[in-house]
Amino acid sequence: MKKKVKNTDSRLKVIPLGGLEQIGLNITAFEYEDSILVVDCGLSFPADDMLGIDLVIPDVSYLLEHSDKVKGFVITHGHEDHIGALPYVLKMINVPIYATRLTMGIIENKLKEHDLLATTTREVVSFGQTIELGKLTVEFIKTNHSIVDAAALAIHSPVGTIVHTGDFKVDYTPVFGDAIDLQKFAELGKKGVLALMCDSTNAERPGFTPSEKTLGKTFDALFQEHKDTRIIIATFASNVDRVQQIINTACKFGRKVVVEGRSMVNIIDTASKLECLHIPDNTLIDIEMLKNYPDEQTVIITTGSQGESMAALSRMASNTHRKISIGPGDTVIFSSNPIPGNEKAVTNVINELLSKGADVIFQDVHVSGHACQEEIKLIYTLVQPKYAIPVHGEYKHLKAQANIAKDLGIPKENIFILSSGDVLELNDSEATVTGKVPTDTILVDGLGVGDVGNVVLRDRQHLAKDGILIVVLSLEEMTNQLLAGPEIVSRGFVYVKESDELMDEARELAYDAIQSCLDRGQTDWGKLKTVIKDVLGNFIWKKTKRRPMILPVIMEI
Amino acid sequence: MKKKVKNTDSRLKVIPLGGLEQIGLNITAFEYEDSILVVDCGLSFPADDMLGIDLVIPDVSYLLEHSDKVKGFVITHGHEDHIGALPYVLKMINVPIYATRLTMGIIENKLKEHDLLATTTREVVSFGQTIELGKLTVEFIKTNHSIVDAAALAIHSPVGTIVHTGDFKVDYTPVFGDAIDLQKFAELGKKGVLALMCDSTNAERPGFTPSEKTLGKTFDALFQEHKDTRIIIATFASNVDRVQQIINTACKFGRKVVVEGRSMVNIIDTASKLECLHIPDNTLIDIEMLKNYPDEQTVIITTGSQGESMAALSRMASNTHRKISIGPGDTVIFSSNPIPGNEKAVTNVINELLSKGADVIFQDVHVSGHACQEEIKLIYTLVQPKYAIPVHGEYKHLKAQANIAKDLGIPKENIFILSSGDVLELNDSEATVTGKVPTDTILVDGLGVGDVGNVVLRDRQHLAKDGILIVVLSLEEMTNQLLAGPEIVSRGFVYVKESDELMDEARELAYDAIQSCLDRGQTDWGKLKTVIKDVLGNFIWKKTKRRPMILPVIMEI
Repeated sequence: MKKKVKNTDSRLKVIPLGGLEQIGLNITAFEYEDSILVVDCGLSFPADDMLGIDLVIPDVSYLLEHSDKVKGFVITHGHEDHIGALPYVLKMINVPIYATRLTMGIIENKLKEHDLLATTTREVVSFGQTIELGKLTVEFIKTNHSIVDAAALAIHSPVGTIVHTGDFKVDYTPVFGDAIDLQKFAELGKKGVLALMCDSTNAERPGFTPSEKTLGKTFDALFQEHKDTRIIIATFASNVDRVQQIINTACKFGRKVVVEGRSMVNIIDTASKLECLHIPDNTLIDIEMLKNYPDEQTVIITTGSQGESMAALSRMASNTHRKISIGPGDTVIFSSNPIPGNEKAVTNVINELLSKGADVIFQDVHVSGHACQEEIKLIYTLVQPKYAIPVHGEYKHLKAQANIAKDLGIPKENIFILSSGDVLELNDSEATVTGKVPTDTILVDGLGVGDVGNVVLRDRQHLAKDGILIVVLSLEEMTNQLLAGPEIVSRGFVYVKESDELMDEARELAYDAIQSCLDRGQTDWGKLKTVIKDVLGNFIWKKTKRRPMILPVIMEI
Repeated sequence: MKKKVKNTDSRLKVIPLGGLEQIGLNITAFEYEDSILVVDCGLSFPADDMLGIDLVIPDVSYLLEHSDKVKGFVITHGHEDHIGALPYVLKMINVPIYATRLTMGIIENKLKEHDLLATTTREVVSFGQTIELGKLTVEFIKTNHSIVDAAALAIHSPVGTIVHTGDFKVDYTPVFGDAIDLQKFAELGKKGVLALMCDSTNAERPGFTPSEKTLGKTFDALFQEHKDTRIIIATFASNVDRVQQIINTACKFGRKVVVEGRSMVNIIDTASKLECLHIPDNTLIDIEMLKNYPDEQTVIITTGSQGESMAALSRMASNTHRKISIGPGDTVIFSSNPIPGNEKAVTNVINELLSKGADVIFQDVHVSGHACQEEIKLIYTLVQPKYAIPVHGEYKHLKAQANIAKDLGIPKENIFILSSGDVLELNDSEATVTGKVPTDTILVDGLGVGDVGNVVLRDRQHLAKDGILIVVLSLEEMTNQLLAGPEIVSRGFVYVKESDELMDEARELAYDAIQSCLDRGQTDWGKLKTVIKDVLGNFIWKKTKRRPMILPVIMEI
C-alpha cells in the first residue's frame, strides 16, 4: 500500500456482472490495469417463467476474456446468492478464493459436492486482514448479518478506496462474535473513500433492524407459553445464530433437540466444527430417538420455512415425512418471513399445519439480516464516500438507497444506479459509465449449464399452457404417396378418451390437407408441415380456443 | 312466514360447494325439505400448478342431482369470486338469479358475453326486501364492501334463521349509499339467529378497517403534492367508490380523466348507467385526446394494479401500450394492495416503472373491503348466533374467526369450520355434519369446461419441466421390419442445434433397442414402446439429469 499514486492515468473499473436487477446473482469485478478481483459469485433462483430451470448463474464471459488478469474471488459471506455459482464458474476460471472461516467452510461443502476441493486454492482470511491481489488490495471488515462471519470489504486501488458492505446490518449485541467494526468504517472514511457500495435490501424500511439477540427472549417466552407441547421451529438453515438461540432456549427448558432437513444438518455440522455454534453435550438427539422422549421435552429445528414443497416441514405438514407427522398438541413456529415470491407457498403450509390441529406461530419470530434506513445512513456518515453505488436489490431498493444518499448530501451526479454489465470507470476526479459487457444469465437445468436458452424456454411455456399435438405420417420417398397416417398423438392438450370426436375430425382434416398437397405435387416437406400446422391450428382454436404446439413429423420410406 | 313451526323433524342443510379451502369459488347451498337456494356462484383463479388453466369453477353435481328443488341463485355482490361461475353453471341448471342493482348489472354484462341474457330470469332486489324461494325466504341487508351494493342475507327457514354476511366491512361513512344496516343485524339477533356465516378474510387482523372515505383526503394530498406531473392511478376495476373518489379529486384539481383497461371501462359504464357513480360533465376524455392536454391536467385511471401482465398498466410500464408510455415526470399510484400470490408480479411492474423514471407510490393508498377483528366481534355481538360457521377464507382465516367466536363465548362445539362438500344439518337443538357431497373443482381452459383434468395437468407439468422427446419409427406390418426411423424430435428439452452428439447417441441407442426387440420377434408394440422409453429415459437421465417425457410413435405400413 505504498504506491498510493494519485493522478495516475489509469482508472478503477467497477463492473457488476449481475445482481442489480434482482435479488441474487451477486458478482462484481474490480479492475485496475492488469488486475481484476471479483467480489462474490452468487446464483439466483429461476423466475416463474423459467420452467424446469434449477438455478441461474451469471455470465462470466468478461472474466474469461480477461482471465490472465483475474487474481481471485473475494467472498463476503456464505449465502447462496453470494457463493452459489462458484462451483460452476470455477470450472471455467480456476483462481483462488478468499473468505472468512465459516464462509469458506460452507464453500468447501459445495466444492466437495462438485469434486473441486482438490483443485481450488482457498485462503481463509481473518477480519482486519488485508490480501494483495495484483495492484489491488482488499481488507476484510467485520459486519453483522443473518449468517456468521459476514464481511465488508475495503478495496484499495492506486486511485482510491472502495468500501463494499456485502450484506449487512448493524447489530450492537450480536449472538456470536463482535459487533460490526464501525471504527474501521470511520477510519476508512477519515482517510477518504472514493465510493461506497452499500446493501440496499431494506433501503425502503425506515428505522433500525432489531438485534438478532432480541429473539432470545422471544423464544424463551414462546417455550414458556407452550410448555406442554412438542415445539417445531422452521428457520433458515444458514442462520447459525438463530439456531444457537433456539438451542440455548431448549437447554434452558430441558428439551432435547432434533435437527431435520439436509441443509440444516450440514450447516450445523460445519458451524459446530468451526466453533461458530456451541451445542452443549446431550442436547442433540437423533430423530430416531424422538419416540423415547415425551413431546414436551423435545424441539425439532427444521428446514422448510419458505414453504419449499420438498423441505422437511412441508413433508411433515402433508403427512409425507417418514418420521414426523403433525397433529393437535404440536406448536409450529416459523422463525422467518416469506422471501418475496414465496408468500403463497408459506401460507399453504401454514393452512395445512393448522388444519392438522397444530398451533402455528408465524409472526414476530424473525428479524432481518439487512440494514434499514438509519443503519444505511450511519454507514454513509462514517464512510463519507465521494460516489454512491447502491447494490444488492431490485431497482426499487437501489432507488430507495439513492434517495437516502441524496438526502445525506451526496450530489445527484455522484450517485450511480448501475445495471448489470455497466462498466463504471472512476478516479478521484470523475466517474463515468464507459461501456457495457455481456451479462446474459446462464440457466442450469440438471447437468446442463447454458444448454437451455430462450428457444427451449419458449417451447416449455407453450407446452405448459396448451400441450402438444404430434402429427405423424409416412410417405413413399419416390412417389410421394401417403403410406401411413396421419396419426395424431396429443399430450397435455385434452383428455383424449373423452375427445374422440375432436381428434377424429382433426385427423380427417389433416388427411385432406396432406392429400391435397401431395395431389398438387408438393414435395417440399417444410411447406407440407406448415400446411398441417395451419389447418390443425385453426381448427383446434375454433373448437377449443387453445393453441397447442402442433408438431408434424414426416417419415420417408 | 307464518308457519314458524319449531320442533319439526326436518332440518336445514347448509352445504358449501366451494370456497372453504381457498379464496374464491364461493357457493353454498341451503336446503330445507323440497327447497334449495344457492348463495353466490363464484370462480377462483388457477393455482400455480394448474398450467394453462384460465379459471376454476365449482362442482355443482349436487345441485344437478336435486335440480327439481333448486329455486334460485341469491348473489351477495358483484365480485368474480361470487358471480364468476354463473355463466357456466347456468348452462347446466337454469334457475332465476336474485341480486341487488349493481350486482345484477355486472352479472348481466357477463350473461351478455355468454349469450345467456335472454334465457335467464333475473330479479333485482332492494335492501330490506324479502324473497320467497320455496320453504325458504331471504332478506337482503345493506352492508359495505369494496364494491357498491353488497348485501348480507338473512335466510329464514322453519327451523330458524341463518345470517350470511357476504363479504363485508363496517363503514360508518361510506362514499356511496348507506352504512351497513346494523339495526337489522340487531333486530335479527334479538329475534334469535340459528347460525352466523361471517366473512373471515381479515379475521387475523386486529382492529377496525378504515372507511373508504379516508382515501378521499389521501388523493387530495397526493394530487396537491404532484401538481406538476401527469398522474396514473391503478386500482381494482370493480371498486366504484374508489374510482368516484379519484374523479372527485381530479375535478377539484381541474384534471381531465382517462379511463383505460377493458374491465375498468365496462364497470364505469355500468355503474354510471345505474347511477352508482357520478361523473361531472366534461371530466372524462377519450385516450386519443390526451395529447391535447398538458400532462399536469390529466389523470389516467387504469387496470393492472395486480401486476397482471396483459393489463394496461403493465403494458404502459413495458412500453407495449399503444397510447401511453411512462417516463420521468409521471406519478404512478397503486391504489391497491397485492392480493396474496401477486406480490412478485406487482413488484416487477413497480421496478419497471421506477426504472423508466416515474415516481411510484404504492403504500397507504388502499383500504381493505373486509371486516377486521373488531368488526367481526360487532356483528357477532349484534346477531348472537347459536352456531358460528366462519366462511370466506383459507383455513387460517376460518380458524382465526373461530378463535374470535370462542372468545365471545360461543361454545367450541357450536363452532363449525366446515370443508367444501360437508353437509351440515341443523335445527334449534343440534347441528351435525352428516355427510359429504362431491366438490371436485372443474377447470376451464379456453372453451373447454372440465375437459382438462389431472392427467392432462400432470402431462403439462411434465412437459413444462423437461420438455418432450418424440421417437417415431415405421414398421412393415407383416414382417416387422424397421422401414424408417427411429427419428427423434424434441421440444423444450435442450437446444437441439448444440446437442447433435447427444441426439445422435440417443438415436443409435433407440435403434439398437428396437432392432434387438424385433430380432427377438417382439410384436407387442406396447412392450416395444416401454423398452424405448426405458432405454432413452435412463440414457438421458445419466447424461443430463433431466426426465423429458418420452413418447414413442410406431407407424405400421
